[in-house]
Amino acid sequence: MRKEIIMIDLLIEKIKITGAPVVVGLDPMLSYVPEHIQKKAFSDYGETLAGASEAIWEFNREIIDKVCDLIPAVKPQAAMYEQFGSEGVQVFQRTVDYCHEKGLIVIGDVKRGDIGSTSAAYAAGHLGSVTVGSQTCRAFDEDFVTVNPYLGTDGIRPFLDVCKAEGKGIFVLVKTSNPSSGEFQDQLVDGRPLYELVAEKTAEWGADCMGSEYSCVGAVVGATYPEQGKVLRKMLPKTYFLVPGYGAQGAGGKDLVDYFNEDGLGAIVNSSRGIIAAWQQDGYGQFGPENFGDASRLAVQNMIKDISEALASR
Amino acid sequence: MRKEIIMIDLLIEKIKITGAPVVVGLDPMLSYVPEHIQKKAFSDYGETLAGASEAIWEFNREIIDKVCDLIPAVKPQAAMYEQFGSEGVQVFQRTVDYCHEKGLIVIGDVKRGDIGSTSAAYAAGHLGSVTVGSQTCRAFDEDFVTVNPYLGTDGIRPFLDVCKAEGKGIFVLVKTSNPSSGEFQDQLVDGRPLYELVAEKTAEWGADCMGSEYSCVGAVVGATYPEQGKVLRKMLPKTYFLVPGYGAQGAGGKDLVDYFNEDGLGAIVNSSRGIIAAWQQDGYGQFGPENFGDASRLAVQNMIKDISEALASR
Repeated sequence: MRKEIIMIDLLIEKIKITGAPVVVGLDPMLSYVPEHIQKKAFSDYGETLAGASEAIWEFNREIIDKVCDLIPAVKPQAAMYEQFGSEGVQVFQRTVDYCHEKGLIVIGDVKRGDIGSTSAAYAAGHLGSVTVGSQTCRAFDEDFVTVNPYLGTDGIRPFLDVCKAEGKGIFVLVKTSNPSSGEFQDQLVDGRPLYELVAEKTAEWGADCMGSEYSCVGAVVGATYPEQGKVLRKMLPKTYFLVPGYGAQGAGGKDLVDYFNEDGLGAIVNSSRGIIAAWQQDGYGQFGPENFGDASRLAVQNMIKDISEALASR
Repeated sequence: MRKEIIMIDLLIEKIKITGAPVVVGLDPMLSYVPEHIQKKAFSDYGETLAGASEAIWEFNREIIDKVCDLIPAVKPQAAMYEQFGSEGVQVFQRTVDYCHEKGLIVIGDVKRGDIGSTSAAYAAGHLGSVTVGSQTCRAFDEDFVTVNPYLGTDGIRPFLDVCKAEGKGIFVLVKTSNPSSGEFQDQLVDGRPLYELVAEKTAEWGADCMGSEYSCVGAVVGATYPEQGKVLRKMLPKTYFLVPGYGAQGAGGKDLVDYFNEDGLGAIVNSSRGIIAAWQQDGYGQFGPENFGDASRLAVQNMIKDISEALASR
């Protein structure tokens, strides 16, 4: 039944409807959460992991409410929840569920990857289901997850199997946005950077896992390396790119045009801090901590405008 | 205060005391859990994620009780808990805490790795602490974690910072045990395999994070590639190896001798399924499902003997 929905197709449909090739990174740090929310949570649950988790939940919920009609998808970063232990992971789950209620596609930024049997457990927990006695149970149930390719094909295959069975998708780390991503990823193998080999494998993995236009197997390609992004776009015409690095990490709309295909599709750009912590940033001071959600909404609108204008004028 | 204990030194001390360079992988699949335990858990919590989590908790507890005096350390695999959602992650936490109560060192097999700010959150959640209001809170609080190097130095540095501050440690994936590990890891860069570059970086990362004999920064080197293990042992004299792949994945004691230094130290060998699911395996049928913990105990004793004899006769 679930297979009726191919998530990559739904993602593209939602991008077309919203006109927003944008994903909001739900990566809450306590330092982004306005004091009145922290105070309330700590008064209810103490200055504990439970209190911190409640604070980020209330923070997330307000932002989701304020941006959900503008965007196709969100990308919660697992680390920001795991830092608060199992209570934080419960809020990760609540966030995924709430985003689904609001009609958002959820890309779990988990960057998992392990040997085959272990990746199978990650794939079951994050995308698929587990059998418990006579029941089939779903755990986190994201729509996409990010995966790390360092262990090779047999660490990826269990994710592919779940994608095929359930119409879900993955984004493979190909060229990441961080300053030292080149340390290993750019090393030359037979005269070509390693990330191109990973890109080729990504296309191979995705070839028998196609949606109607694009594959269920996408690639993470950092916005901070536009030259590499351009090359990868040409290499991987059927691969959707999840592009981190916009905003706080330094890239703007004009850096991103070559990550898109001629049809205006092929990439979805993530911003985390630039959206969710907008209220603390220059240009959003008028909102104040009470209206942080409205600041996030304006930041999303500004981001959509920036990318749309860059694409229109290329 | 915590810094008083350097975990790599404590690990070595415990290896010497037990005579067991062995770590038990607490990677519970429901299929390993005897029916009487599943039935009890399902009758209390239903055939739900909570029921499954309770079952693996009871399973873990019995095994920990039966093997804790024989070994220095355990290695719970995060995926096996995450497959049961946040309830599973709670059992991961309970398992870590219970192993600590029993005096075991805990290596969280999480294989995390991300951009700097995100790795900082993983490092805080798994090894360090987070600040909540005026309080310092600890989440999972493992002693070591495994980390994925694909993002380069700035994805590793936050873990190093926590290791230095707290005396904890990491094991960097250098050459993994799975069949397709060579797909990227063995690619030649200037005539040398990529995993050797990762090994060099691992030594560099570990150089200013030393215990008394070995670094707090170890390496994951799969038991299934003994030739590579031998080369890496020579390259990395001060780096402890966490060696997966023994038992169910195919390697035996004689394959492992070159992973150790002349002093008999330098490696700790993991077995997961071969220990925790011993009761289902040839040679352990006499225990039956009721006495699965005793089967695990004998499997640990057999593994220690196998490795000790191989080391003695080299």
